[in-house]
Amino acid sequence: MTTAASIRIRLAQLKVCPGHPTENTARMLEMIDAARSDGVELLVFPEMAIPGYLIGDEWERGAFLRECEQCGEEIAAASEGLIVVYGNVGLDASRRNEDGRVRKYNACFVAENGRFVERPGLPYPFAAKTLTPNYREFDDSRYFYDTRKLAMETGCNLGDLLQPIATSRGRLGCMLCEDGWCGDYGISPGRMLADAGADILLNISCSPFTLNKNHKRNRVFSALAAECGVPLVYVNNVGVQNNGKTVFTFDGSSCIYDSHGHQAGDIEPFAEGGFTFDLPLQRGASFGLPINLVDDGMPTLYRAIQYGTQTFMGQCGIERIVVGVSGGVDSALVAAIYGAFLDPENLVLVNMPSRYNSATTRGIAADLAANIGCLYTEIPIEDSISVTRAQMDGLTISSPDGSVSREVTLSPFVMENVQARDRSSRILAALAAALGGAFTCNANKSEITVGYSTLYGDLAGYLANLADLWKTEVFDLATYLNAEVFNGDLIPAKVMQIPPSAELSDAQNVDQGLGDPLIYTYHDRLFASWVERWDRATPEDILAWYVDGELESALGYDQPIAGLFRDAAEFIEDLERWWSLYQGMALAKRIQAPPVLAVKRRAFGFDHREAQTGPRYTRRYQELKEALLAG
Amino acid sequence: MTTAASIRIRLAQLKVCPGHPTENTARMLEMIDAARSDGVELLVFPEMAIPGYLIGDEWERGAFLRECEQCGEEIAAASEGLIVVYGNVGLDASRRNEDGRVRKYNACFVAENGRFVERPGLPYPFAAKTLTPNYREFDDSRYFYDTRKLAMETGCNLGDLLQPIATSRGRLGCMLCEDGWCGDYGISPGRMLADAGADILLNISCSPFTLNKNHKRNRVFSALAAECGVPLVYVNNVGVQNNGKTVFTFDGSSCIYDSHGHQAGDIEPFAEGGFTFDLPLQRGASFGLPINLVDDGMPTLYRAIQYGTQTFMGQCGIERIVVGVSGGVDSALVAAIYGAFLDPENLVLVNMPSRYNSATTRGIAADLAANIGCLYTEIPIEDSISVTRAQMDGLTISSPDGSVSREVTLSPFVMENVQARDRSSRILAALAAALGGAFTCNANKSEITVGYSTLYGDLAGYLANLADLWKTEVFDLATYLNAEVFNGDLIPAKVMQIPPSAELSDAQNVDQGLGDPLIYTYHDRLFASWVERWDRATPEDILAWYVDGELESALGYDQPIAGLFRDAAEFIEDLERWWSLYQGMALAKRIQAPPVLAVKRRAFGFDHREAQTGPRYTRRYQELKEALLAG
Repeated sequence: MTTAASIRIRLAQLKVCPGHPTENTARMLEMIDAARSDGVELLVFPEMAIPGYLIGDEWERGAFLRECEQCGEEIAAASEGLIVVYGNVGLDASRRNEDGRVRKYNACFVAENGRFVERPGLPYPFAAKTLTPNYREFDDSRYFYDTRKLAMETGCNLGDLLQPIATSRGRLGCMLCEDGWCGDYGISPGRMLADAGADILLNISCSPFTLNKNHKRNRVFSALAAECGVPLVYVNNVGVQNNGKTVFTFDGSSCIYDSHGHQAGDIEPFAEGGFTFDLPLQRGASFGLPINLVDDGMPTLYRAIQYGTQTFMGQCGIERIVVGVSGGVDSALVAAIYGAFLDPENLVLVNMPSRYNSATTRGIAADLAANIGCLYTEIPIEDSISVTRAQMDGLTISSPDGSVSREVTLSPFVMENVQARDRSSRILAALAAALGGAFTCNANKSEITVGYSTLYGDLAGYLANLADLWKTEVFDLATYLNAEVFNGDLIPAKVMQIPPSAELSDAQNVDQGLGDPLIYTYHDRLFASWVERWDRATPEDILAWYVDGELESALGYDQPIAGLFRDAAEFIEDLERWWSLYQGMALAKRIQAPPVLAVKRRAFGFDHREAQTGPRYTRRYQELKEALLAG
Repeated sequence: MTTAASIRIRLAQLKVCPGHPTENTARMLEMIDAARSDGVELLVFPEMAIPGYLIGDEWERGAFLRECEQCGEEIAAASEGLIVVYGNVGLDASRRNEDGRVRKYNACFVAENGRFVERPGLPYPFAAKTLTPNYREFDDSRYFYDTRKLAMETGCNLGDLLQPIATSRGRLGCMLCEDGWCGDYGISPGRMLADAGADILLNISCSPFTLNKNHKRNRVFSALAAECGVPLVYVNNVGVQNNGKTVFTFDGSSCIYDSHGHQAGDIEPFAEGGFTFDLPLQRGASFGLPINLVDDGMPTLYRAIQYGTQTFMGQCGIERIVVGVSGGVDSALVAAIYGAFLDPENLVLVNMPSRYNSATTRGIAADLAANIGCLYTEIPIEDSISVTRAQMDGLTISSPDGSVSREVTLSPFVMENVQARDRSSRILAALAAALGGAFTCNANKSEITVGYSTLYGDLAGYLANLADLWKTEVFDLATYLNAEVFNGDLIPAKVMQIPPSAELSDAQNVDQGLGDPLIYTYHDRLFASWVERWDRATPEDILAWYVDGELESALGYDQPIAGLFRDAAEFIEDLERWWSLYQGMALAKRIQAPPVLAVKRRAFGFDHREAQTGPRYTRRYQELKEALLAG
């Protein structure tokens, strides 16, 4: 190691295009050239910078792996005159993974002067991830062997494998993402690397954005840097990656922690870019600012949704969007979000009234389009609905020999769903196809939780970009955008005043103050306890809290819940109604729902895996219920 | 251990209801009573007999885990006078999993005389799974800690933990499923248990049916028993479990291998039942028959599909089924499968003709219903299609201020999909709802691979029970059923003679011999190489084989492929057309597709995870292509 006072380091917050190694490598090579010109000595790219991370079972394809390896060699060859650190899949053709396929690691490579830095005595020229997460959206053990397994396999101590990588400018302690989030693993790879002499800890990550996650990351990583007494460099990518059912944004938010746990770094989140810093090399150097631990707010939430929507749309090659606008808040907010970045001729709002739609909501829809300035049309559904009713209501179906038969009746409930499907599967799908675009799904998380939406109807669309927000959060975001972003009621103020309603029957007449059967302020909190709560609640927990008078505080609901229901029987009836839907019909609908844009903990899809096994109530629940009803 | 010559053992091939511990426990208690009456000394239930196995993230719910634990205690208490072995989740409230939640193991419990058999010196009263699979549909590491991690955590050797459980009738070497499939793990828990003195090896499993899997299991388990020189008892459950996108059947096929690797056991597959056997206890006793290693055939395939369909339908609480029948083979086979077990008044076939549907196919549909004897009707789509065309074709959409506008044209291609959506989302969905039933998705694997089906159209339905079969396999199964099961052409012979066709335009007129753009005999083999092949092929592999003249043998296609295409350019055009769809639009459709009934390796869904990242062609592919086109 030289005695220079500092090292010029650049955090390369790359926008990773998942599954496209050659494209990522081309941009990395440009960034290497630029860094060299700028006198950068250590350039750090994120985890899985070359292949991307959320790419499903593409890891099983030899042709893809060979391309990743070739790209990595090109990056190493380009490292003349500086140190380049990057994430890629690390391959070992001589060993097997536990699924019998070629051995793969989630690996951190270090190259300098045109070649990989050698690691005498260690099995690989790269550092492999030690802690492989298998929760939420993560499936690391499905694809990657890890340092712990390698230690067991080779009969050595983990510490023998967790060694810093010695470059000309210092010993780099290379961690990959979860290695820094080690609280539940009983070992700390960062601490072990520091103990083994690392001068700098690096954490390269591919860490999806989750509301308030950076708050925790700042606590954890700052404590780790301070505990180890060495600076810690955190590099995360930006972009959008998905695993089919769930779409994740990556905010980057790369930064440096000094050895006191203070922070430096000013990269714009959700944007490709670099942060260059002359990192002091003397032990104990103080260069950061104390961390300001603040929760994310509406601006961050909006940024994530807007960035995720726009980026995913682009990745899918979609240029035109059709939004079915009902006059309600969900579709209005979706339209406003697209309107903020699409040209007016590429955004079509469609109102599709039936006899049940009020002039009020139809007026709102037209006003919304006028405010956005985009294309707008009304396509009524009455004629088509009449055809369906005429063809099927009262129809008798028989066996060809006439021995058995059955009468068909389209009940009012069936007709509600007929309307919803007519709108999406007949009108929106055809319109989007005719325009060479896609139509949106405007469902929110409350609806999706209990299936208060129609499959092939309002649950259809190419992306559900509000589906990780409760209905109350949809209102909050719409209110925030009008006030702080749109500088006026781009979303018509009336949207916020009418009751939320599907307007599929006379019982849902907004002009009479009628609407959805949900008390969103309460039910959103109830549903969140089932879906988002770390220790996920069930009706058993809910009843136990209810009996103990703790339900309000457990749910974070600020009104007396008893005031919402006539008595315990009605409370229980409501609870069972929604829980049975959540684990029953709503689950069946979610299996066929569009991809959900995840912005919080436990978005539906890959972050909330579920099986169709029917609603479940525990014995303890039944006991609590009986006692409550008897009392 | 006593010196009795044999032990009476019963393999309890339980039908497990996933997510319903109390129901499973009730049946287990009945089976324990029956076993005691029959003088059974050792009763063995499958892995995860109490909770079920594929239940998604339900493992994160404390109320559910407490119920499972309570059920386990009831089973132990009932073990008076015999030894009971069963699978359940094993909990350790004092430790954490790596996701921070309570410590859980996939565990095998042994109880005798009313209590759990003690294990002095070992951390738990149960044996935990050592090898946790994380491939195909398996996510064990997401939920369960394992013996290898426990060894690392506690700093002991794995062998210290892998000890037989000492009962009054012998030392039981308890393995859980994957522990027996250890070829790629570098350790053999079975061998270690035998070396540690096990008198009998038990493998309790919850192992989904896959065509020809038992062939491999017989090889692997027979070799293990022979290698260890002790008998091996294999107990697998029956029933149906799912993880949302994919539905798996369990065939049981429980049996015993003697210490020479020979097999005994005659339990009917896909049926709850027991196999009782007086197992000789002297070392080296020979009591089985040499294994007949045969691949599964059509009877097994049909049994799995019929069992899976009927059981899943029952678990979903569905009693009536609507099948849209086009006159083609897919819908005819689906109707025939339901017809084999549903009462005629609970099965409705619907033909939904447009101007493009031939009298030929309409006649087939009516004949099929007559042969099955179920309900039948025709509901034409022309009127509804006309409404759509009149409302939208030629429509001009403008912004409210008139500054921008766009013309809508419903092209023939758009109108094809309009027809398909009209049938499923308008007619079938309403009819199923009106009858209180569900409608089927009749898609096959060929269509789903390349998206040759319409989202919200023929890709809709509650279950796609043929979607793991290639089109050629659908024909084979239909032919087999007519010949061997239905004793005549229940599926009208004409179905097999007309070309496969969507009949959505004049270009698909079956009476003129026109139909689908796929050469199924070839494309099925091509698609299988992308989806089902162990070493999954890509266009790079396909082109390399093509250049080397090895494509036919690599795909298992028995005709010269060159004969199918004018030249290399046309071959490549075809390859890229389907690959781009497979990784592009078809993938987007699969995300919203119904659950697939899995019967083979790599069913779409949870066994074939994928991300929307756009079609990918490697650099090497581009080089091969350029060379080929230049040559």
